[in-house]
Parts: sequence; structure tokens; C-alpha cells
Amino acid sequence: MTSNIINRRDLDFMLAEWLDVAPLFDHEPYQGHSSDTVTAVLDLAEQIATQRFLPHYRAADLNEPHLLEGGEVRVLPEIRAAVHAAAEAGLFGIAFAPELGGTQLPHVVQSATSAILMSANVATAAYMMLTMGNARLISVFGTKQQIATFAEPQIAGRSLGTMCLSEPHAGSSLADIRSRAMPDGEDEYGKRYRISGNKMWISGGDHDITPNIVHLVLAKAPDADGRIAAGVRGISLFIVPKILPDGTRNDVVVSGLNHKMGYRGTTNCLLSFGSGFSRPSGREGAIGYLIGEVGSGLQCMFHMMNEARIGVGLGAAMLGYRGYLQSVQYARERPQGRPLGARSQDQPVMIIEHPDVKRMLLAQKAYAEGALALVLYCARTLDEKSLAGDSDTGRELARRIELLTPVVKTWPSEYGLAANDLAIQVHGGAGYTRDFDVEQLYRDNRLNPIHEGTTGIQALDLLGRKVLRDRGESLRELRSVVSRTVTHGRSVPELSGHASELDRAWQTIEDTVSVLLDLADEPRVLANATPFLSAFGHSIVAWLWLDQACVCAAKLHAASQHDRPYYRGKLRACRFFFEVELPKVYPWLSFAASASDVAAGMCIDEL
Amino acid sequence: MTSNIINRRDLDFMLAEWLDVAPLFDHEPYQGHSSDTVTAVLDLAEQIATQRFLPHYRAADLNEPHLLEGGEVRVLPEIRAAVHAAAEAGLFGIAFAPELGGTQLPHVVQSATSAILMSANVATAAYMMLTMGNARLISVFGTKQQIATFAEPQIAGRSLGTMCLSEPHAGSSLADIRSRAMPDGEDEYGKRYRISGNKMWISGGDHDITPNIVHLVLAKAPDADGRIAAGVRGISLFIVPKILPDGTRNDVVVSGLNHKMGYRGTTNCLLSFGSGFSRPSGREGAIGYLIGEVGSGLQCMFHMMNEARIGVGLGAAMLGYRGYLQSVQYARERPQGRPLGARSQDQPVMIIEHPDVKRMLLAQKAYAEGALALVLYCARTLDEKSLAGDSDTGRELARRIELLTPVVKTWPSEYGLAANDLAIQVHGGAGYTRDFDVEQLYRDNRLNPIHEGTTGIQALDLLGRKVLRDRGESLRELRSVVSRTVTHGRSVPELSGHASELDRAWQTIEDTVSVLLDLADEPRVLANATPFLSAFGHSIVAWLWLDQACVCAAKLHAASQHDRPYYRGKLRACRFFFEVELPKVYPWLSFAASASDVAAGMCIDEL
Repeated sequence: MTSNIINRRDLDFMLAEWLDVAPLFDHEPYQGHSSDTVTAVLDLAEQIATQRFLPHYRAADLNEPHLLEGGEVRVLPEIRAAVHAAAEAGLFGIAFAPELGGTQLPHVVQSATSAILMSANVATAAYMMLTMGNARLISVFGTKQQIATFAEPQIAGRSLGTMCLSEPHAGSSLADIRSRAMPDGEDEYGKRYRISGNKMWISGGDHDITPNIVHLVLAKAPDADGRIAAGVRGISLFIVPKILPDGTRNDVVVSGLNHKMGYRGTTNCLLSFGSGFSRPSGREGAIGYLIGEVGSGLQCMFHMMNEARIGVGLGAAMLGYRGYLQSVQYARERPQGRPLGARSQDQPVMIIEHPDVKRMLLAQKAYAEGALALVLYCARTLDEKSLAGDSDTGRELARRIELLTPVVKTWPSEYGLAANDLAIQVHGGAGYTRDFDVEQLYRDNRLNPIHEGTTGIQALDLLGRKVLRDRGESLRELRSVVSRTVTHGRSVPELSGHASELDRAWQTIEDTVSVLLDLADEPRVLANATPFLSAFGHSIVAWLWLDQACVCAAKLHAASQHDRPYYRGKLRACRFFFEVELPKVYPWLSFAASASDVAAGMCIDEL
Repeated sequence: MTSNIINRRDLDFMLAEWLDVAPLFDHEPYQGHSSDTVTAVLDLAEQIATQRFLPHYRAADLNEPHLLEGGEVRVLPEIRAAVHAAAEAGLFGIAFAPELGGTQLPHVVQSATSAILMSANVATAAYMMLTMGNARLISVFGTKQQIATFAEPQIAGRSLGTMCLSEPHAGSSLADIRSRAMPDGEDEYGKRYRISGNKMWISGGDHDITPNIVHLVLAKAPDADGRIAAGVRGISLFIVPKILPDGTRNDVVVSGLNHKMGYRGTTNCLLSFGSGFSRPSGREGAIGYLIGEVGSGLQCMFHMMNEARIGVGLGAAMLGYRGYLQSVQYARERPQGRPLGARSQDQPVMIIEHPDVKRMLLAQKAYAEGALALVLYCARTLDEKSLAGDSDTGRELARRIELLTPVVKTWPSEYGLAANDLAIQVHGGAGYTRDFDVEQLYRDNRLNPIHEGTTGIQALDLLGRKVLRDRGESLRELRSVVSRTVTHGRSVPELSGHASELDRAWQTIEDTVSVLLDLADEPRVLANATPFLSAFGHSIVAWLWLDQACVCAAKLHAASQHDRPYYRGKLRACRFFFEVELPKVYPWLSFAASASDVAAGMCIDEL
């Protein structure tokens, strides 16, 4: 029932029984598809994941990409083969329109597909995720010619893409980027600029997987008056292909590789644009094509960033998920110790019988399945939003997604990692050796609370932009959705206690927000945004656990003997979350509500 | 004031102002020493740590020990040079009697010295810690001849030592070890046995640092009736030197190396005893000398295990401590972002100015200094116990140390790692590259919640053996010590709130224990031992923070302008611990008190 990389029973539950994906296929964009398509796509993804992604998981960690003289990067050949297999199977195009070469399946199906590939090998899957996000952005904001030239090859998996935001001196602080774009006429691909500057932490920045790489680059460009606006309003977005449409090499080159503790199969580069590496059309300066308007770069990029953030959350969830599956398997097969009260002559039992090991496995299940549920819920909401279009419902769903984005980035990153920590612990000493994948899963996952916006940045985004700025309005809207689950839960005897607990937690969140709204002294209010995010994330995941549990409780009695343990396990993980995890929100919230200056008020000479 | 590896101001505070080490020198064993000796020893340790230990921290991670054909292990030459420098400086012998070649300083001074070396390079220091523990055990339980032959060369640092407990199939479950010892006569070194079996996870199991290695090996040996007692009562302890006193090679050889995610400079071996690698005295079988009595092996080994557990806690604390210092330095020097409300034209500030970065640095300070305080408090208590001998006070102190041992092993392991996690986070993307030590500190520290007894094992030891077995008596004794701090704290206006909070937490611990004592169903009671340990550890560290804060509050007003920020920082870290950390004990304790079977009652087919 459970393969090495995914519990398909669980994924099927989430898609078919809980999130009820089938009705989506009644809607126009998805017509022609059905639940059978979903099964076929997931089967295909699982086959490719198992045969092409999983086998080089460790090898890609041990053999990092390397930089040749001349600035070309070489990756493990198995990575190339895996990406090509995924491209041939059409897995890059799952959620794109047929006219772009895609299959037009809902976002939630694409997420489930990606989940399988990420579980098998997150570093190889990262090339795909970046490419799909890049192509999505071009397909939304680009011209027809730009889409045909730069997005479609990515949708086919013939080119890969990157997003180039950070610079060596500016990671989170994009207002300070120094890359410049100077006008250089116009051609069929759009307004042409010459880009110069250095970009840091560029995943997939160079490799030999595909001949061409499509970089999306933030740079400061002069407006119509020849001035560069201050701060983020001066930032524009450019398509900068490694190989130009005329087949010549653009002036972009790798000037260094970052060596990370995880995701080692994903090249991570320092890229130099316009350093004179080549002279496209006869002079130095990387050729870039403006996408969108001058000054709208960050706005366009955030379209991709949100998708990238959901992608980070999904990767983190799946690292946690695979560690969970691995440690369950290990615990089932490893004999050691005896139950309390047994005699030393008795045979040792499998460690899965020990209460503390059960606790660690159940916690992993609660974290990993909770994180995956969160990501799939958000993807499902994206689909609903697409269908609702520019309506009241559509706008409410858009606000819900905005509110959930910092959580979907952060919670799986923090608790997927916590799950991986427990997966190591279940393995004992074996867990920190390179003989088992769990130590690599843990190292891989440690990147996720940082890249695409640190936990601290997400917390400021949540509390400042998404909660306080609209005076709690989006939060109240979400609460009413949560309350529907509370009402449902109250009607199920075994869940009614959880329902009351959930309601209390959300009431405490609203009370905390009221307190914070009343405080005029804003910097102090935001000083403890991170504990607020911790509490909010836990309350979201508790809600989604209860929501799943309502479905499970209804299905359990009619379930086959064979299927019952699955539902019982979900109900137990829900109970674990409510008994062990949800109570943690109160210390976080009371600290956040206190608007304590214990950290913010510290003089730095006290450290 | 703060070097790269230790804040000497803080170490001096803990030893001289808080733990008041000076009065120890009035007692006979330590006479001739004074606070000046302490300063001199710490200066020496810091010099060796900086010059010999720190420089190869990263190199030893990148160049793991390797196994030659023939079973010899080679380590990085800088490790050998560092260990020899420490040996020449007499740092192995700090806490041993002069007649054994030692300096006879208190245990707390030895711990402070080790702390400095561990902060600089925990993997190199590990060879020393194991050796000192080994020599201590032989000096307590060995014969005069055994001490002279096997302990004294270790005290001089001319030989290094190991402890060989685990076997491939038996880590935590020592009752199941299969290694055998068969009588082989007697000679001047004691009762001779032939040992055969495989030992796993042996740190320092082979290397080229010293020619000889003294293994202490647990094996099952027949009693006077020729029978091997069942379970742990069948286990005896043997000294098995790599090179026998006659200069010949013993029948012990490395049959494999473990490749770990951290502590990579410390060789970690699978050792084969009696595999026929050599034929000492003409036949196969490793020659081992019985130490103590037949069947008393585990009892002897636990003497060393407790020391090893304190050593693990100290290493974990210092990894956290160095990550803290590193991230403070990085945050002081890295410009990025602006305060809320600043204009984009304003210069970026150093990231140490951002409230969330301050929060992460202050949390690290609270964890790292809290962990070091815990270890040094325990070491100081060991000294007091030694002086008190076999008196009522001595026995009470022994019980206190027994109660604290699972905490001193676990809390620094869990929260030193949590500190390292935050140190990475402060560094942002740079934190997970190999350009900064923080990613290595994190990997190193991940071993500590496992080796020398996992957190789960420590939790069972605490709740089962140390708390419930004596029906809470040791706990009540400790509570009365804590209450003295509460009383003191109540008399200091700025600390009186913390004092009340501390009292409430300890009362809740006692209430929880009462509930658990009333439950007859013991397995269920112990099922949630780990959350109990979490709460107990936090309550201990909160107590020690308040205890330090009482001293700081008294000293602050008379302190020099230059010294005030130091005391203010301690008081702030204490406040942080009470505002943010201590409230976490309530969810843990209420879950423990519920004796929930949510995990223990799970059928394994639910996973």
C-alpha cells in the first residue's frame, strides 16, 4: 500500500475523498479529464520517480555539480536523464494550456505529481519546479512571441529556467539590488536591454541538462524620463536566455558555485551578467527582454514567488513525508529491546513496538501528512480561484491564498524538518550515517526555512501585510471557513472535543490580533511576528487535520476491513495533533499579544 | 571581551561569581591551587584551542579518517598535533591525582577547560573526553598495576581510550550483547580473558594519534560456576589494549568505518575482537583483563557513562555556544534591510538591528549559556559530592546528580542544536553553505541527542528510575534547593515575577508526578516520558537562569560602566527564558499528566 516514496492511499484520500477534485473536471478548462486521468498521471509520475529520480538521490549528494574552466557547470548525468524522462512524459506541462503544449490539469493535480517527484529526489525535481514557475510567469505577463520563444520550450522541458533575484549584498532586501538594465532598442522578442550585475544563490543557474537556460532577472531600469525610481519601484523584470534566439551565447556566465549542506544536486550559482564573457550582437552586456512594464518587475516576480513559495512548502513536506516512510520501515524491521516488564530471556521486539518510537512515528505522520494536506489545500484553492475569476468569490479566495502563502511556505519547512529530525532519532546511531537517506533528507530540508524568503520574512508578511493592514478582515473571512469545520466536527462525537479546542485556538488568534490592532506602536507589534506565525500555522494545520478527520470518521464504519486501519491512522494523527501540538499555540500567542520588547528592546552590546 | 570560541567574561562569571569556585581550594585535595591556577589553565586551554584545535575544524570535516588495507586508520595530521599539544600542556590530567600524573583541579575547572577545547573543535576534543573517562574508570575500579599500565599513559595523553558497548544488533539494549570473554589464566595485569565479538559505533576505535589505544569492552563472561548469567548481570568489563604490555599486537582490528553527518574528525569504527587478525601469545582471541568483578561490568561502565553523558552535554552546549558567537559576529557585520518606516534612500543597517534577528540571537544566548550553566552546575555539584564523601549531604548530592544526569545529557543536546538552527537562520542563505562554520556546528550537534543514550532512553531513565521509583523523593529534595532560589528571586523586585513563575512550574511538575504515581498502569505512565523530560529540563534551566540573574541583579549597580552591558545581557536572557520558554512546560506537563495512550495505544498498521 505504501511505496518507498509515497503512500498512494493517502494521496488518493486527499485528492478524491477530502479535497474532492472530481467536480473540477465539470468545468470548461479541465473538460476531457477525469479522475482516471489523475490516476494515470500519478502512476506515471510514480514510475518515473522510482526509476529515474530515486536511484541517484545519494549519488547527487556525493557528487556535487562542478565548474569547468570557462564557466560551464557539469551535473551528474543521472540528473539529466531524469529531467529528460520527466520532460518526455509531459510532466512539465501538466498545468499549462494545450495551446502551449500542456495538458491543462488542475493545479492540485500538478502539485500531487510534483509531490511524488520531490519525495524521490527533491534536488532533481527543483530544476522542474523553477522551470514551471518561470514558464508560468512568462505565459501570464509575456508577449505572444515571448511565450512561444521562451515559455513553450520550458513547458516541453527542452529548456530549463531560473529566477534571479538575490545579489551578493542583497538577499531579502530587493530594494537594494544593483543590477542595471539599459535600453538597447527593440526587436521581435520585445524591448531589448543590456543587463549588467551579479546575481547570487541562483538555483539551476547553469548546468548541462538542457542547452538553453531561460533566466528571469530583476534589474533596475530607467523609466521613460530616463530616471531610475527609488526602492522597489525602480525594479523591472527581464528574460535573459543563456543562448539567444539567434543561437549566439549571451553575456552571462557562472562566476562561482555555492556549496550547500543540502539540495546538492541543484546547481547553485553566482552569475555574472554583462561581465564581457561574450559580445552578443557585437558588444558586451547581457541581452534581456523586458517583461511587463518598466517598474513592475517585483509585481511580476511575486506571481512566480508565490508559486515558488508553495513549491518550497511542497518540497519540505515531501522530505518530511519520505523520512516518515523510511523510519516506519526501519522501525518495522529493526529488533531491539523489550516491552517494560519482559524478561531478558524474551526475544527482542521490533522497535516499532516501543511507545516512544510510536510517538516519534505518529508525530512524523501528523507533521508530514499535515504539511502535504496544507499544500494540496492551497493548490485546490488556487484552482477554485481560477474558476471563480474576477468575482466576489474569486477575490475572497485570492485573499485567502495571500493569507495562507506565508504559512504554506513556512509550516512545512519548519515541521517537515522536525519530522526529519525524528526520522533520524528513530534510526538511532544509524540515522546519522550516510548509509541511510534520513540524514540527507534532514540536510536537504534545512534549506527550506531560508530560501524563497526566510521564516522571519514570512512572519512579517503574514502579520504586517496580510493580517494587520486590512485590520483582520481576511482573517475573519478565513475564520468563517474554519468555523464550518468546527460545526461539522461538533456533530461527530469522537471529534467534538477537538472541534471545541480548534474554536478556542482561533478565538485566541482573533483576540491576539485585536490586542495588536489596538497598539499604535507598530514596530513593537511586529517584533514578535514569528511566534504569531508559529501559532497561526499550527492553527491552520489543526483545522485541516480536523477537516480530514471529519471525512475519515464518516468513512470508517463503512470501510472494508482492509481499509479501516488507514482511516484509524488518520484519526489518530489528528488526535495526536490536538493533544500534543495545538496546545503549543497558547504560549506563542500570549507572548505575541504581550508585544514584549524583550528582544527588540535589547542593546546590541548586551550580546 | 569575546573571542571566537568563548566569552571569557561569561565563563569567569559562572565560575567565580555564580558557582563560587574559590572556596573549593580551601579543601585538602585542591590545596595549593587558587583562582589564579584556574585563570592560568583556562588561558592555556584557550591558547591551545585557538592555535591547535580551531584551525582544522573544517579540514577535519572535509577529510574524514580513512581505513588502510590491514585495518589501520589514518586521521588528519592536524588532529594528532592538536591532541599532542593538549597532552604536553597537561590538559588530560587536570582532574586526576598528582600520584597519577595529574593536577588535581576540581571537576568544574576541568569542565570549563574542556568547554573551551570543545567549542574550538568538538571532534578533536572527543578523543580527549573519551580518554579521560576511560582513565577515570580504570583509576576507580582497576588494580594498582592496571592503573599504572593502562590509566597513567592516558592521563599523560600518551595513549588514548575508548568505550566499547554497542554491537551491530544492540545499541541501547546492552542486555543483548553477544561478545564473549573466556578465562585464559592470570598474569600481573589481572585475570586474563580471551574476548571475541563485534563492537559498533566505537569513537576513537582506531587512529594514528597515539601508538596504543586502551579499549574498555563489555562482554559476557562465565561466573565461578561456568555459567553466564542472564541479561545485564552476565556482563563484565575488560581492558583490551590495542598493543599488549609485551609490545605485541592484540587481536582487535577495525572492520569498517561509519561515515557520519557530523563529528567527522572522530574516527567511528566497527571493531572486531578475536577475529584472528593476530595471535597474541600464540593463539587467536583478543586478550582482555577483567576490571572489577565478573558480572559488574555495567555497573563499572555506568561510572564512565555518566561522565560521558555530562561530556556529551558539554560538547552540545559548546557547539551551541560557538554558533551563537559566530552569528552575533555575522549579524554585526552584515548590512541588509532597514528599520520599519525608513525610506529606501536610507542606508541599510546591520542585520543585528532587526527585531527578529535580535530575537534569534537572544534565544541562542538563552539556550547556549543556559546549557553551559547546567553542565557547570552539575560539575560543581560533583565536586561538592566528592568533598562530602559518604555523609548524608554526600548521598543527597549523589541523588541530585543522578536526577540531573538525563537532563545534562539531553537538554544541551536538544537546545544546543536549536541554537545552531537559529545560527544558520541568522546567516540566511550563507548559513547553509560550507563557507561558514554554522552548518557544520549544526551537523555536529545532531549526533548529540543520540549517542551515549538517546533522548527517549534518558526520558525513561529520568521518569522511571529517578523520579517514580523513589516516589518523588529526590525530586522533592531538589525542589527545596530550587525554592531557595525562588525565595531569593522574590526579594529582587525585577525578578520577583520570574520567581513566582518558577515556583508555579515546579509545583506543576510535582502535581504531575503525583498524578503519575497514582496510576498503577505503569507502561502507560512511561509512554509519555519524553514530554516530561522536556518540561523538567526547561524547569531546571529556568531555575539556573534565575539563580544567575539573582547574582547579576546584585552586581549590576556596583558594576563599572564597561561591565554593565554584560550583566544586563544576562538579565535579559533570563527574562527571555521566562517569557518565551518556560510557558512551554505547561502543554508538555498536561500531556504527560494525562497519561494519554494516543501513541502507545496505536496499532502499527495505522502507520
